[in-house]
Amino acid sequence: MKSFFINTGPYNINDISKHLIFSEKKKFDNLLVKNISNLIDAEKGDLTFLESPKYLSELSKSHASFCLLESKYNKYIDKKKIVPIFSKNPLLDFIIIAKIFYPESDNDNYEFSQNRNYENLNQYNTLIDNSVKIGNDFKVGLNTTIKKNVIIGNNVKIGSNCVISNSKIADNVIINDGTVIGKIGFGFKYINNKLNFIPHIGCVILGKNSYIGSNCTIDRGSFSNTVIGENTMLDNQVHLAHNVKIGNFCYIAGQVGIAGSTQIGNHCMIGGQAGISGHLKIGNNVQIGGGSGVLKHLEDNSKVMGYPAKSIKDFLKS
Amino acid sequence: MKSFFINTGPYNINDISKHLIFSEKKKFDNLLVKNISNLIDAEKGDLTFLESPKYLSELSKSHASFCLLESKYNKYIDKKKIVPIFSKNPLLDFIIIAKIFYPESDNDNYEFSQNRNYENLNQYNTLIDNSVKIGNDFKVGLNTTIKKNVIIGNNVKIGSNCVISNSKIADNVIINDGTVIGKIGFGFKYINNKLNFIPHIGCVILGKNSYIGSNCTIDRGSFSNTVIGENTMLDNQVHLAHNVKIGNFCYIAGQVGIAGSTQIGNHCMIGGQAGISGHLKIGNNVQIGGGSGVLKHLEDNSKVMGYPAKSIKDFLKS
Amino acid sequence: MKSFFINTGPYNINDISKHLIFSEKKKFDNLLVKNISNLIDAEKGDLTFLESPKYLSELSKSHASFCLLESKYNKYIDKKKIVPIFSKNPLLDFIIIAKIFYPESDNDNYEFSQNRNYENLNQYNTLIDNSVKIGNDFKVGLNTTIKKNVIIGNNVKIGSNCVISNSKIADNVIINDGTVIGKIGFGFKYINNKLNFIPHIGCVILGKNSYIGSNCTIDRGSFSNTVIGENTMLDNQVHLAHNVKIGNFCYIAGQVGIAGSTQIGNHCMIGGQAGISGHLKIGNNVQIGGGSGVLKHLEDNSKVMGYPAKSIKDFLKS
Repeated sequence: MKSFFINTGPYNINDISKHLIFSEKKKFDNLLVKNISNLIDAEKGDLTFLESPKYLSELSKSHASFCLLESKYNKYIDKKKIVPIFSKNPLLDFIIIAKIFYPESDNDNYEFSQNRNYENLNQYNTLIDNSVKIGNDFKVGLNTTIKKNVIIGNNVKIGSNCVISNSKIADNVIINDGTVIGKIGFGFKYINNKLNFIPHIGCVILGKNSYIGSNCTIDRGSFSNTVIGENTMLDNQVHLAHNVKIGNFCYIAGQVGIAGSTQIGNHCMIGGQAGISGHLKIGNNVQIGGGSGVLKHLEDNSKVMGYPAKSIKDFLKS
Repeated sequence: MKSFFINTGPYNINDISKHLIFSEKKKFDNLLVKNISNLIDAEKGDLTFLESPKYLSELSKSHASFCLLESKYNKYIDKKKIVPIFSKNPLLDFIIIAKIFYPESDNDNYEFSQNRNYENLNQYNTLIDNSVKIGNDFKVGLNTTIKKNVIIGNNVKIGSNCVISNSKIADNVIINDGTVIGKIGFGFKYINNKLNFIPHIGCVILGKNSYIGSNCTIDRGSFSNTVIGENTMLDNQVHLAHNVKIGNFCYIAGQVGIAGSTQIGNHCMIGGQAGISGHLKIGNNVQIGGGSGVLKHLEDNSKVMGYPAKSIKDFLKS
Repeated sequence: MKSFFINTGPYNINDISKHLIFSEKKKFDNLLVKNISNLIDAEKGDLTFLESPKYLSELSKSHASFCLLESKYNKYIDKKKIVPIFSKNPLLDFIIIAKIFYPESDNDNYEFSQNRNYENLNQYNTLIDNSVKIGNDFKVGLNTTIKKNVIIGNNVKIGSNCVISNSKIADNVIINDGTVIGKIGFGFKYINNKLNFIPHIGCVILGKNSYIGSNCTIDRGSFSNTVIGENTMLDNQVHLAHNVKIGNFCYIAGQVGIAGSTQIGNHCMIGGQAGISGHLKIGNNVQIGGGSGVLKHLEDNSKVMGYPAKSIKDFLKS
């Protein structure tokens, strides 16, 4: 997986496995671990982890070369491809290794290398890091900060008082005033009684023609990206947690909140103030009424409402 | 209707009707269209539209001279006053004409002509367009932007990190930090498979003694204004969509959201996190419990709670 | 109670009691009132008030020397310690006196004395009042304002576009972009048909290791402080009203709203978009499901969900 943070690897598997807390102590063959990743995005040479049996189907397709997992899932691993590392808590051990590879990723960047383009943009108080790549026809408001390595396509408009970091922004995207995109997500784990911020090596990807309202917050991904599809529109004060993935042509009204790692298909409509729990899969063409609370997966073409959200037919009956 | 955007008209009705997509092709008498407007605010010479039969009573009172409408409503038009233009989709055709009259209104303004009063205000980083009119005893925080043509009364206070555009602000108004007022509302229409942002030629009107909390978002109106009455108070993180109209002496608690075109009477109290659907009429002296979801019109003196909101008596029973 | 605002007292009780509107007219012994305070924080020489019989147990423990209260509660006062001042509306009379002691506290401060440390911090556009005390290893983003008398511990990080006032921030605190902390809370009273903003002489106290997300709003206290405990974490777009007190090791997810004067214990978890009414006591180890609306006190170890929130067992049954 490609990260905005600097990969300090590769590391010999025996060097990094020494730091693991919940894994068996064992000498592995002297192999290099190139990178860390989630199961889906892992490439050859990468280390990944199996957090729960929910993801066994992803394990079977993963291109990773190393995997932290509980020993009871040993039989699901193809040992020709993947070296298993047995751990009583694969997630916590993965966090330990993620911090070795990406020591800056459990934090946000407060430094600011140098301002760019100030004169050309003719905007007061807007600060764009020297490393930012910007396409043609860029417009930006005042008092906005665009942090290092952000990539901005053509014909993009960003309002005033925004903070943009760790983001890839496609052509024709509009981001309105006061919106914060790409900061670290909300995740903490205590390991041996010491607080750890979960590393967030992912970024935020805004698809072509997408539109983000004012005072929204979109956190970057932890071990995958936060993604907004093409032609998808977000109204004001929407909150997207880390790893949320939204398809194309979705309309998301004001004050909607979507919890971490939830995936939403294409052509969905979500009414104002609706909330969706974490780790859910919402299909295509789904309609969610304003103010609803979605606590379960939803199939394609579902129309739901209420708390907990049920089919509109059932909602109107009750 | 008076807009903050520049009216590029008048136009001959035959010149602009050529651009319509859903209307009959027809040669009209050579009359000038002075402006565009909603049914209520239209003056003699203006072109308006009938979006649905809900608004037939407004049509009968309208002072417009031209009206886009479906041919089946022909009989409701007083042809001595109004030239009918039959359209299979009056809203979409009206959008096309609105863009001709107000080509800048489907967008927000990222330009900034020149700073004003920097020295007098003695505030760092706050940028006020040269064209802004300001009364006496104005106070403003830091890193705030006030865009062109905004009108500010006497004894107004605006906090830090605000973005104010397309707004008329009466005497004694307070706007707190991080609030965004007057940007374009959330509305998109595909016409011939091409995405169109609905023009927003309206503005935001803040009545005397009104109070707006921190990190609120109040969008400007599309074909009418967004209005907050006198002595009406909004807490933090309130979201008002385009065309919302709130009366006098209302109290609206934190994180309330009101969807587009809803109208609220005087002396209403709305509890925290309540949501109100679009296009509703809420009477006077209405009380809405915190967290409620209002999906229907509410009569004067209603007291409601729950999702969907029902009378508090019924809510407590169930 | 120690306030960020300047105490203009002491005042002779006979001088200030003249301004009271709902109290009996009476000559008191010529004693000095040193300060005003709530029942709990009052010290010897302070004037306090009894708003409702709910607080009689606090009255019995108060160290105040003067107390505004309804005459029917006379018998609960220990006259050796406390001079009673009988009032038909103790809160409104207390507001009148609070404005005499703290004339600036019903307002926010728009002035900015002088910038500090600009060069050292090497951050553009960030403005820190000269009077702010800052510990070691401070990091701050861009376009942020830190107002007078704020106290910041060691190893604190504050993001971009924040506005911080009237706050005491302990070691290792992180505050993310766009967050507003310490402004006046949402409270208004009409006295003799004249609008009064309730004075807010309290501040915001952020405990050690606490974490505040982006675009949050945390108002300062009126007659007590707003407090966030140690190791307590708030996600994005959380709203805390005046006088809210949260214990240690709590996790509060995105878009949660907590109304005024509610108290929350230690080790609580509150799901996204949940709302809690004002003046409630929530115990320790309480879990509140996402989207819930809490309308009642909750005992230790409660697990609740729904609107109104009930035990998860009951919620799943219904």
